[in-house]
This record gives sequence, structure tokens and C-alpha cells, in this order.
Amino acid sequence: MPNSSNQRLSSVMSHLTSSKPKVVICRNLGPAMPLLMDRTDLDLVVWGEDSACTRAWLLENIKGATGVLVLLQEMVDAELLDAAGPSLRVVSTMSVGTDHIDLPLMAKRNIRVGYTPDVLTEAVADLSVMLALMAGRNDGVAYSLVKSGDWPKFNWSPFTFCGPQLSTTSSSPSRTVGFLGFGRIGQATLARLIPFGITHVLYTGRSTSAPDSARDTALREKHRLAAVEHASLDRLARESDILFVLTPGGQDTYHLVDSVFLRKMKPLSVLVNTGRGTVVDADALATALREKWIWGAGIDVLEGEPRISADHPLVKEPRCVIVPHIGSATFQTRMDMATRAIDNLVAGVLGGNMPAELVAK
Amino acid sequence: MPNSSNQRLSSVMSHLTSSKPKVVICRNLGPAMPLLMDRTDLDLVVWGEDSACTRAWLLENIKGATGVLVLLQEMVDAELLDAAGPSLRVVSTMSVGTDHIDLPLMAKRNIRVGYTPDVLTEAVADLSVMLALMAGRNDGVAYSLVKSGDWPKFNWSPFTFCGPQLSTTSSSPSRTVGFLGFGRIGQATLARLIPFGITHVLYTGRSTSAPDSARDTALREKHRLAAVEHASLDRLARESDILFVLTPGGQDTYHLVDSVFLRKMKPLSVLVNTGRGTVVDADALATALREKWIWGAGIDVLEGEPRISADHPLVKEPRCVIVPHIGSATFQTRMDMATRAIDNLVAGVLGGNMPAELVAK
Repeated sequence: MPNSSNQRLSSVMSHLTSSKPKVVICRNLGPAMPLLMDRTDLDLVVWGEDSACTRAWLLENIKGATGVLVLLQEMVDAELLDAAGPSLRVVSTMSVGTDHIDLPLMAKRNIRVGYTPDVLTEAVADLSVMLALMAGRNDGVAYSLVKSGDWPKFNWSPFTFCGPQLSTTSSSPSRTVGFLGFGRIGQATLARLIPFGITHVLYTGRSTSAPDSARDTALREKHRLAAVEHASLDRLARESDILFVLTPGGQDTYHLVDSVFLRKMKPLSVLVNTGRGTVVDADALATALREKWIWGAGIDVLEGEPRISADHPLVKEPRCVIVPHIGSATFQTRMDMATRAIDNLVAGVLGGNMPAELVAK
Repeated sequence: MPNSSNQRLSSVMSHLTSSKPKVVICRNLGPAMPLLMDRTDLDLVVWGEDSACTRAWLLENIKGATGVLVLLQEMVDAELLDAAGPSLRVVSTMSVGTDHIDLPLMAKRNIRVGYTPDVLTEAVADLSVMLALMAGRNDGVAYSLVKSGDWPKFNWSPFTFCGPQLSTTSSSPSRTVGFLGFGRIGQATLARLIPFGITHVLYTGRSTSAPDSARDTALREKHRLAAVEHASLDRLARESDILFVLTPGGQDTYHLVDSVFLRKMKPLSVLVNTGRGTVVDADALATALREKWIWGAGIDVLEGEPRISADHPLVKEPRCVIVPHIGSATFQTRMDMATRAIDNLVAGVLGGNMPAELVAK
């Protein structure tokens, strides 16, 4: 792949005399790059560094482009479209989220938008289960004890490091899992929890999480659950042993999990956020952990990320496990996302069917 | 519960004039203590501190006892039995392991032994899944990045923090899970992995892990797996994407996972040890991680624990996640273990059926 400025320059130059459609790739897509570089029908302009491209580079290079492949970092707005000019037909983002794209403007200018839903469902469900287990099992404290070399000095006793058990036992035979947002990822997470002995499922949320009694009956029968029910936010807080936050972000869900919600939760419950950081009030969650309203938390997304310092109130809470937004970070899934983004781009540029095209509402 | 030396003294004194059988409890069993303290038919002597009892205290207090409840820290040997005298009928340990008990001597002196198998199966299976996920998902590195406050400075790129995905995807549709030891915990771990899309299962080990084609066929059909097969150690190493070490310790399994074994493993495989520390050569595993013979490791048990310092070669490996032997550490399971140990003790003292009596082979 071209990764020197000379190579970039020659790539930029070539399109001036080429009849092939120009496409701009804003990121080094690593192992997925051969899928692009092997194509001879496109005039590729690739940002070769292993970092986000600069805005100046993008504005300069998008001139006359037919397509552009972006990530969450690139703002797709009037300035960018104006720089591209009337040739631009497609914007393909390697992401599920599209907050960085001015969708109404895209519709107005008749520019197609590709994105990468679905392919990350399994990876995020895996991480949701991992964080639920870590939050219950005191993983932060346990891991730090070994890492700091303090294991030898530790005064063990029979209930040391104990936390609530995710799986049921004969003496503790029921578990209620709550989903704030019960779309694809929520249902994939639920499927993974079935062998742990989960008995009750509650959910609420918007649109895709609306009550669906036929679906719920099917889920209940398939997994032999005692109940799968749409519930109020109040009931979700009061009854969940493990609560998964998997709802979209935005104004409608902003701080839906606040101190009022958290105060209603069970003292041995754990909260997992692999959805959107803005749904949970981080200060309220830190208070809930410090004052033991709930047992633990597992966090992949956090309001204000990545500007999270070591003295952020949640980072300081020993029963809060935080990972840096790695929900979809597996080789398989990122490769699938990159492939999907490339396929969307190429189809859009050549006027074909895009595997995942966002249709403006 | 008596936790001052005066209370202990009065408890000790009372047995001198009591006709009730004397039982010695070597540990504060926390929330399980009321199960003992509420009994009026026993003469209880309880070590009241929240630590292991001293040997001197135990040797002094066991005189004339009918039963004793011990943990892994208490050596049950000729010295202890001699100190107890001919009244001793039962030793109940709150553990699955019995390496601390001289079993041939117990048989010779006709002293019954109770232990706590089975009740920890679910908790250890939960932790095995957690460590498999953590080892694949770069959890050690990801967690440390946030904890150290370096998240804001981090140069994200599309394949940052990626590791091998536990669950299958349409573009990566097969996973082989290997079990070195395929008893109860192994099978409970496998059950939890089914919804992740596992396709092939290989196992080997001793006694309970012997080939069992009827059982394997049943497992394969029940879980719709492509294969469940007993395999050689060589094949287990070469084909496993995720390898669980769950075999008993002792001479027969000492360093079964050594550099020869590890060199055969796949570069994207992960190893999880929730069995016994001695089965894995820790130095060889550190080399395997450093030189990228395998992808990652999740460790709950480690040879030489708890004397593991911060400069232990595995503690220093970024792709090795270590927790301090917390396999059974949940409130539910430790309570079940304590209850079982108490029930064994009481039944043994009163001459009844013990829920889990170890029968000498």
C-alpha cells in the first residue's frame, strides 16, 4: 500500500489524467487494504499514515472525487461536500454510528450513504458478557492485586473477592437480566447468557425495543425462560440483577440511567454499558458504586471519551471496570466492517447495490 | 459469633463440663456462621479472628474434639490427630482439594473425611469463560490504558486492540475448543460457549476425561456441534483456538503444558488455566506469549501462588491476564461450600450421612 508522501502524490496526480472514478480513503485500513489496492478500476487516493487524516488533506484531496471512505473522526458536512464538488456520489463510513454525517444534507444533494450495521453484533455481545462477568467477580481489584505484586501479602478469607454469581445455582436459582435497548446486540447477548441459567428477561427502549409479544413468547419458549417482558424503566431498575445498556445515544436517551434510576437498583446488581456513553450519568454511577447502591459496573463507552483522565470519578472506583470502547475490536469483526465499508464504497461509486445503504427517513 | 478471646475461652471452658460433642471451627466462615452458632447440640470452639488459625491454637483446642472443620491451610496429619486423641470422628474441609489431609492415615484411624465437590462447578465455569474472553480481547492492555489515564493520548486506528474473536461470524464460521481435563467444570464451560458458535470440541485428560463415545455423541447432538472427540495431547495443542486447562494437579499432570506443547499451538489461540497451577510451565508460557507462539492467556491458578511478585515473568506479559485464584469466589458458591462443610461436619459428628464424604480408594 502507498505509505510515503511520494506515493500519495503520484496517486493524486494520476487521477488528473485518469478516466477512472476517484475515491478517497481517509484511513489506513490495515489488513483490509489489499481489497482496495488490488482494484484497477478505481483511481485511489489513500491517506497513508496510521492515524486520522488531517482536515486540510481531506479538503484538498476530495476535489472531484466520486466516493469517500470515512470513519467516525471525519465530519461529513457542507464544507466537505462543497470541496468535493458535484462528482461526489457516495460516502461510505466504517461505523454503525452516523452522527458525523449530515444526513439531511446528503439526502438533499442526492449522495448515497453506506454504513456497517449488523457485522459487529457478535463482537459487542461477547464483550457485554465479558464485562458482566468482570463487574460481578471483582475483576478490577483482583487483577490489580496480582499486577502490583501484592498477592503474597494478601490476607485470604473464605469470602474474599466474592461477588454476585452470574450463573444460577441450586441454592440461588433465579436471575433477572434487564436490557435498556433490546435490538440485535441485546438479543445476541441474551442468547449467550442462557446457559448461565438466566430465568427472567425484562427490556425497554425505543423503536426496535418496543413491546413485541409474539417475539417474546418465541424467545421464552426457545430458551425455556420464566418470562420475557417489556417493562417500565422503573421496573427494569428495581428487578434487574444484571442490566445491559444497549440503547442508541442522542437527546432521547441522554442520562436515562441517572441517580434516580440507580437508587432503585438492587445492591448486588451490576450495570454494563456497551451502548452509548451518554445514556449513563457517569457521576451518578460513581456515587452509586461508592455508596454501594449497586455492586459493580462494566463500561465500554463513557460520556466524554476518549478524554478520560486517571482521576475521572469512575476510573477511581475499584468496582468499575472500564475498557476503551473496544466493543467491535476483534480481527474478524473489524475486517468485516472494513470489507463492508469497501463494498459499499465500490458499489456506490459504480452505481450498484450497496450491501448496507442508509436510507434517509 | 464469639470473636473476642474471652468468648473463645468461655467456649473452650464450657466443653470441659459439657456432654455435647466438641467441634473445632478453624475459620471465621462469615455469613455462614449462624448455621453453626444457632446449634445447641454442639460444643463449639471457634477461631474468631478473620485469618487462618495458628497451629498452636489448633493443637491446643482440638484436644478431645469429635469433629474439626478445616480449610486448605490446616495440615491434617499425625500430629494433629494425636493432639485430638481417640474422640475424633470427622474432619470436614471447606475445599474440593484434599492435599492437606493425610488420607491413608485417616482411613487407618477410621476418621471420616468430608469435602465440597460439585458446588463450585458453575462459578469456575463462569470464570473460565470470563478469562477466555479477556485473554482474546486484550483486556489487560485495554484496562491498563484507561486506569493509567492514557486513553486521551491514545492513537486509535481500525485494528487497535483487536484480538481473535471468541464467537464465530459468517466470515469466520468455525471454532475449536480444547479441554485438557473434561470433567464437570469442562462440560459446564462448554455449555456456556455453545451460543458463541463453537463448532468443534477436543478433549483429553485422565480418568473422568477418558474417551466416552456415547457421551460425546449425545453432547454433539444436543449442542449441534460438528465434532466432540477425545484427542491426543499433540492434536489438542495443534487444533485448539481456545484451550482450557481443567485437569487435576499432582505428578501425573506436572507441566503437561510445556514449551513443546505451546510451540504447537496456533498463533491466535488463547490458553485458560482455571484447573491447577502445576499443569502449566509458567516460564514456558511467558516465552510463548513474548515470542507470540500463542495470542493470550487467562490465568486463575499459577505454580507457586500466592508467592507471585510483580516481576514474575507472567505478570509482566501484557497479554496475560491473571486473577488470584478466585474461581469459586462468589457469595453463592462460597456460601454453598461453607454450608456443605458444616453439614458434613455435623452429620459426621452425630453419626449420620454426610452429604459429601470422601471414600478412601
